[in-house]
Amino acid sequence: MIAYYHPDSARHKPLHRIAGGELRPTFETVARIELLQQGLQELNIPLAMPDVDAARLGHLISAQHDAGYLGFLEQGFATWQAMPGTGPELRTSVHTSRHMTRLPEDFLGRAGYYQADSSSVLVEGTWEAARASAMAALAAAEAALAGRGPAYALCRPPGHHAYSDQAGGFCYLNNAALAANAAAAQGARVAVLDVDVHHGNGTQQIFYSRPDVLTVSLHGDPAWLYPYHAGYADETGTGAGAGANLNLPLPLHSGFAAYAEAMQLALARIRAHGTEVLVIALGLDAYAGDPFACMGLRIEDFARLGAACRLPLPTIVVQEGGYPSPDLGRLLAAFLGGLAG
Amino acid sequence: MIAYYHPDSARHKPLHRIAGGELRPTFETVARIELLQQGLQELNIPLAMPDVDAARLGHLISAQHDAGYLGFLEQGFATWQAMPGTGPELRTSVHTSRHMTRLPEDFLGRAGYYQADSSSVLVEGTWEAARASAMAALAAAEAALAGRGPAYALCRPPGHHAYSDQAGGFCYLNNAALAANAAAAQGARVAVLDVDVHHGNGTQQIFYSRPDVLTVSLHGDPAWLYPYHAGYADETGTGAGAGANLNLPLPLHSGFAAYAEAMQLALARIRAHGTEVLVIALGLDAYAGDPFACMGLRIEDFARLGAACRLPLPTIVVQEGGYPSPDLGRLLAAFLGGLAG
Repeated sequence: MIAYYHPDSARHKPLHRIAGGELRPTFETVARIELLQQGLQELNIPLAMPDVDAARLGHLISAQHDAGYLGFLEQGFATWQAMPGTGPELRTSVHTSRHMTRLPEDFLGRAGYYQADSSSVLVEGTWEAARASAMAALAAAEAALAGRGPAYALCRPPGHHAYSDQAGGFCYLNNAALAANAAAAQGARVAVLDVDVHHGNGTQQIFYSRPDVLTVSLHGDPAWLYPYHAGYADETGTGAGAGANLNLPLPLHSGFAAYAEAMQLALARIRAHGTEVLVIALGLDAYAGDPFACMGLRIEDFARLGAACRLPLPTIVVQEGGYPSPDLGRLLAAFLGGLAG
Repeated sequence: MIAYYHPDSARHKPLHRIAGGELRPTFETVARIELLQQGLQELNIPLAMPDVDAARLGHLISAQHDAGYLGFLEQGFATWQAMPGTGPELRTSVHTSRHMTRLPEDFLGRAGYYQADSSSVLVEGTWEAARASAMAALAAAEAALAGRGPAYALCRPPGHHAYSDQAGGFCYLNNAALAANAAAAQGARVAVLDVDVHHGNGTQQIFYSRPDVLTVSLHGDPAWLYPYHAGYADETGTGAGAGANLNLPLPLHSGFAAYAEAMQLALARIRAHGTEVLVIALGLDAYAGDPFACMGLRIEDFARLGAACRLPLPTIVVQEGGYPSPDLGRLLAAFLGGLAG
């Protein structure tokens, strides 16, 4: 198996998320990188630098994300730093809501338009790290599409909560969507299978009206779990994409039995789509020992999940969530081991 | 002139808003109450306790606001306090956005549905204070409707950013809307004229499809000022309420000349509506010395603004924004003095 990682991923160092109503240490930290790398070492999978064509990367990112949003990601923190009285994190209080949706001119107002929540901050290096994640995802896609076996992208920050024009849930550029778009650009029918414990709301939105890219997400029921306001079973796609989005929300703490059952539905749909390329948005946070601790999967369950994802298709595995625990690397090794067979 | 105030307004003591990306002291503080009271003393206007019928108040609040939202306002802080690891303010990070709008079951998820931003927190006493504000507004409405001259309600917390089902901008119950609904319930044609420096987005939403209540807001251009995502001139009402919402966004720092011109348009529309009862949502934050300091009005401009609002109609003045400065009381006295003639 091939794995890609770009060291700029470590340049994004957010400090705080909002928890308990206060600013508390975030757990989407640089420490995740080393833990995930330990998992790859366990399987003797070497890490390669993603050597993607910058113009191709830029083209794919621009096709997927809004120009104003990309400008904000790239230059927003410098603008913020130049403003008087600003702290080390670009965090706003006011965002668009279900009642108010307009795009203002003001910088703080635009920040509230382009950021979905008050925990997904921009800091020094966020853009470089987000771009590094995207590079890893594209490199993995290119390797898999070239027939070089399943490929893994150590993407950090993660991506599946990033909308076409909005950061959220610690995500900035949607890496799994980028891998899917790279495959779709070659005319392939693609499926994104998201097994992160949280709904892949950004990925869903990016492909919501597209028939060529099927999006499937297994996740803890959003009625009880982030992102709360999207990810329900009745969200099935729109327009030409009607029927090409499948949400499989699972009751919290339901363990692997629920995953096994949902995987049957997911795989049936992936087959029915005529899928030629599979992108797996791999969150490891359904683990019982994850800080989120809400689905109760054990280490060996990730091996079974990986095995279930072993299809005779070019397969790209993109890292999503999964937060620091002593077992984070072992979870990755279990999944990739199961996938490799 | 009659003025109403309920001392429970002082029970809401939020600590922080998000500013500069950090938690910093809020300025929607209890100190505002004393400053505003000084303004009334300057005019020798005594403060009366609002002696409204509790059942009538409850009926009006329930007709205007969503039941789930009211349950959250009333019981949310107690639920929050009973949760492990929560701080003194009910603040969430994730709210509904333009991309995700669903109502979850989870308490934190519901908090994100019912709160529009990360600065409008619930604390001990928020519900009692919000209800105290609503009582003052209703008492003032009843006095004005009974022909007892213009009536002022010292509402704190303010109300005009509160939607039917969402707190925001330091507002919880929409007091000006409540006064308007009390008048509309008697069959009157009502106009709400909002002169707060910020758009009255909650009031707009509550009446957006209603033809009987005209909503007019003069405010700093939301392209550059909170609430950023609503308050534009092309928002004119919907359905039966089409044409019954008038937004008059003003360039920042434009001073009284812009207000005078906008007031002509506002008053022409109020006349054309066949207005029988006038509700003034009185923010004092267009003042040059306000912490917001973005419109440049002087003290005497508030007297002129008050004089311009002097119409031969039952008139209810509901306090909205205006933040601690040594002149806050003088601004109120200037406006009410101008209104009384």
